[in-house]
Amino acid sequence: MIPTDPPAPSLAAFKDVYQNSERVAVIDLGSNSFRLIVVEYVPGLSFRVTDEVAESVRLSEGMGDENILRAAAMNRAAKVVQIYGAFCKASGIQEIIAVGTSAIRDAKNQQAFLARLEAESGIRVRVLSGEEEAYYGYLGAVNSSDLHNGFVLDMGGGSLQISHVEQRQLREAVSFPLGAVRVTERFLQSDPVTTSELDSLREHLDRQFGRLTWFRYKPGMKMVFVGGGVRMLGRLAQKADDYPLDLMHGYVLSQYRIKTFRKLLADKSIAERRRIPGMKIERADISLGTAAVIHEAMRVSGFEELTISAQGVRGGLFYERFLAGQEQPRFADVRKAAVLNLAHLYRFQEKHAEHIAHLTLSMFDQLPAAVHQCRKGERDLLWAASMLHDIGVAIDYNDHHKHSAYLILNDGLPGYTHREIALIALLARYHRKGQPTLDEFEAVMEPGDSRRLVQMAALLRLSEQLDRSRDGVVRDVKLTAGGDYAQLELLTRGDGQVALWSVERHRDVFQQAFGLELEVVTGHS
Amino acid sequence: MIPTDPPAPSLAAFKDVYQNSERVAVIDLGSNSFRLIVVEYVPGLSFRVTDEVAESVRLSEGMGDENILRAAAMNRAAKVVQIYGAFCKASGIQEIIAVGTSAIRDAKNQQAFLARLEAESGIRVRVLSGEEEAYYGYLGAVNSSDLHNGFVLDMGGGSLQISHVEQRQLREAVSFPLGAVRVTERFLQSDPVTTSELDSLREHLDRQFGRLTWFRYKPGMKMVFVGGGVRMLGRLAQKADDYPLDLMHGYVLSQYRIKTFRKLLADKSIAERRRIPGMKIERADISLGTAAVIHEAMRVSGFEELTISAQGVRGGLFYERFLAGQEQPRFADVRKAAVLNLAHLYRFQEKHAEHIAHLTLSMFDQLPAAVHQCRKGERDLLWAASMLHDIGVAIDYNDHHKHSAYLILNDGLPGYTHREIALIALLARYHRKGQPTLDEFEAVMEPGDSRRLVQMAALLRLSEQLDRSRDGVVRDVKLTAGGDYAQLELLTRGDGQVALWSVERHRDVFQQAFGLELEVVTGHS
Repeated sequence: MIPTDPPAPSLAAFKDVYQNSERVAVIDLGSNSFRLIVVEYVPGLSFRVTDEVAESVRLSEGMGDENILRAAAMNRAAKVVQIYGAFCKASGIQEIIAVGTSAIRDAKNQQAFLARLEAESGIRVRVLSGEEEAYYGYLGAVNSSDLHNGFVLDMGGGSLQISHVEQRQLREAVSFPLGAVRVTERFLQSDPVTTSELDSLREHLDRQFGRLTWFRYKPGMKMVFVGGGVRMLGRLAQKADDYPLDLMHGYVLSQYRIKTFRKLLADKSIAERRRIPGMKIERADISLGTAAVIHEAMRVSGFEELTISAQGVRGGLFYERFLAGQEQPRFADVRKAAVLNLAHLYRFQEKHAEHIAHLTLSMFDQLPAAVHQCRKGERDLLWAASMLHDIGVAIDYNDHHKHSAYLILNDGLPGYTHREIALIALLARYHRKGQPTLDEFEAVMEPGDSRRLVQMAALLRLSEQLDRSRDGVVRDVKLTAGGDYAQLELLTRGDGQVALWSVERHRDVFQQAFGLELEVVTGHS
Repeated sequence: MIPTDPPAPSLAAFKDVYQNSERVAVIDLGSNSFRLIVVEYVPGLSFRVTDEVAESVRLSEGMGDENILRAAAMNRAAKVVQIYGAFCKASGIQEIIAVGTSAIRDAKNQQAFLARLEAESGIRVRVLSGEEEAYYGYLGAVNSSDLHNGFVLDMGGGSLQISHVEQRQLREAVSFPLGAVRVTERFLQSDPVTTSELDSLREHLDRQFGRLTWFRYKPGMKMVFVGGGVRMLGRLAQKADDYPLDLMHGYVLSQYRIKTFRKLLADKSIAERRRIPGMKIERADISLGTAAVIHEAMRVSGFEELTISAQGVRGGLFYERFLAGQEQPRFADVRKAAVLNLAHLYRFQEKHAEHIAHLTLSMFDQLPAAVHQCRKGERDLLWAASMLHDIGVAIDYNDHHKHSAYLILNDGLPGYTHREIALIALLARYHRKGQPTLDEFEAVMEPGDSRRLVQMAALLRLSEQLDRSRDGVVRDVKLTAGGDYAQLELLTRGDGQVALWSVERHRDVFQQAFGLELEVVTGHS
């Protein structure tokens, strides 16, 4: 074997754009939990979460209809905020965005509480209105999913926001006091819960949701769901199914599945719920309320499935800052942004990656539809895999194809479905060595994907051979399919002998994938 | 949960020592295969292989007793060296170390061949004497293993070097024309091989090895084995056993196992050998010769097992350059060098890591032997895990404990056994979250390791809590074990409230590991 792959990005190249990186801490003081994320970013170019902390505080505990924050809850909260402040200080983070939502917003003793927090922690908290909370939830979701038309639902401990999205724009939004802690305290007091308690919650939900005339499914719409509660249900489902991806963002749950969980949880006491595999101890008491609200929202609006988003208000607050240079703080293309962000994080060789994408997609486009089983949608996966195929060299040159797959699967590429993410990872995995198979990801695939993977991987491998010397010597290719053969013409600038010699040795890959003998000829440039 | 972990190393910190990195290509023109590695390094500090290329050339094919390189073989060789030269040029690598071994050394037409290579590729090849080849093989092995006394055997296509090591010094070395291609051509011409062919090879080997009076096992000695042939046998064994680690360096093969392979291969034709899982097609013909030579070497010298080293002559040539500033080009402590090299590659937070090591080992040392099941040798594993526990944040903050384990398992930490590497990886994995288990590594563990893992992981987790604010506020600890409890006294400088609050919340981890209730008190500093 001769040089098959680009070397690791030069370590010397690390003195790059990241020298100008900034760090921001985003703190979200919810009714149930307080969360802190630290994001390091180069504005508009690249970002990564470098720290994440969550603490179950139950700030809204015992607020009742009087809307008064209780002493014990405030003490717990103050302690956590103090620790967060100390943490930011110790970590040298100067930029802190801290927001309060439902519980703080509604509290009659809000002013005194905020003053105490600032005095004890040095952190000044901005209280979001219901509309603002909905807006930031929308902004987080729309920048991390392929949502064009539909709804973003963000369910916290205190409130539930429903945002109506049209053409990626926020059209209207409403905030209900239907958070998991609130509805549990108000409706589900018995343990186990009684049928009449559940019935009265459902009637209440139906009335609330029923009033929203615009909250109805139409073809093409998606429901994106944000919050710790829905993620918990996702975890239960993934555990039960032995789900092959370790990703929550982008995970799809059906209305039927949510209904099953609601029934399962309603039949159990809190102590019994704690023993369900995947259940978080501190969420067991409010898990039934969560499932009931989500199910009714889906039933009333007529959505058969929802997609979980791990990026809510905190994400939205971050994107507002990250994309501050733009007219609107939204990515023009979420999927493209996700791929380029990951590529930048691992310092991809931009020129080589783009040339591989050019050659691979050119062959993809020239092959007649009769020859390859890929559809229009898969073209973008091949592009993503071309851009990311070598990022694994940041870990180690040996087995870097496997490391690339590992990094892609771990990142999760917001905006792509789990099937698509798995396919991109597999394409990177099989851009060198081994016979492409769907491996453990069969469960998330569609019929025909096995064949598609083999075909796309073959094109990617051929491109790698063509740009083996990584100098773009093969600037273009012509690919013509005959009856039982295909002819690949290399349009070169300069000496193409290495490329020719290399690609000749991989003709069998093409033949296995497409059933056509491959002829390679050198053309005129 | 409050801040449990250090943030990712600041991306801005990438403008560091690596700016002064250098790159070198080491090319080894063997009798069977030509190999190229590219290593990027900061002299004396850190290095990584960024490219590796191997091509089966069979340069020695048909040389026979006349020792003349044949035309077809030279043409194959010249083509590959030309490609290697073009590759180095395209990659901007200016420093090239190219060496020729047995086949070139012995060739009567050496001069003309070397002149041709230089004219066509621009690469000047240094021909190593048998002693030099043995020396560099020794240097590669001694810098990547815990070999103190014993032998390094390096078997190529043309020759076999045996080096005698005492107190890590090379004492004597000898080179035999017993490479895999040579012995196959001379002794094993039939397909399948006949019994009398095998017998005459074995008699020949016995005579050769028998003359080396110093080539005998003594207690405490190790046999380290280098070369593509032994790695191939290792691959067959790992495939057959479904071996849990994806590492060849440091893998142990018994004499009995080698004997089994020799028998298995002797019973098969070359075509049949090719179908053995793990067999490389181009090595099938010489695989029996390989197994026969290795087995006789072990039998005559009396070694029951050998340890595979993936670092031979190429490694030695690199270390000579990397450690050029030292009196002798040898690491003072191979294991320590391996840990620090990996830590530097992923830009560990040195101060935090060292403080964690200090606190963890301090607790380890203070616990009475009756309380913990760990032995003296495990202390070093705990040190390594302390230094490496956070390197995974270079991949992603989320699940960084899993990423740390992934990076450790992938690197392989030369000088540690596979059991030790797996334990270090598991300690990093369980320094946060989850209940420590041996997982899929049970097969390489010793009795009692499950308990040892739980105990060491508990100490590591407690240390993390103690240095949660990462400012060394808890500078030391006193740990005293009573009858059914242990008392941990924190010696702090400054405000230790975060540490105290954090460690209090993890007392159960200690109790589960040691069966002792943990009391935490603040001491005087």
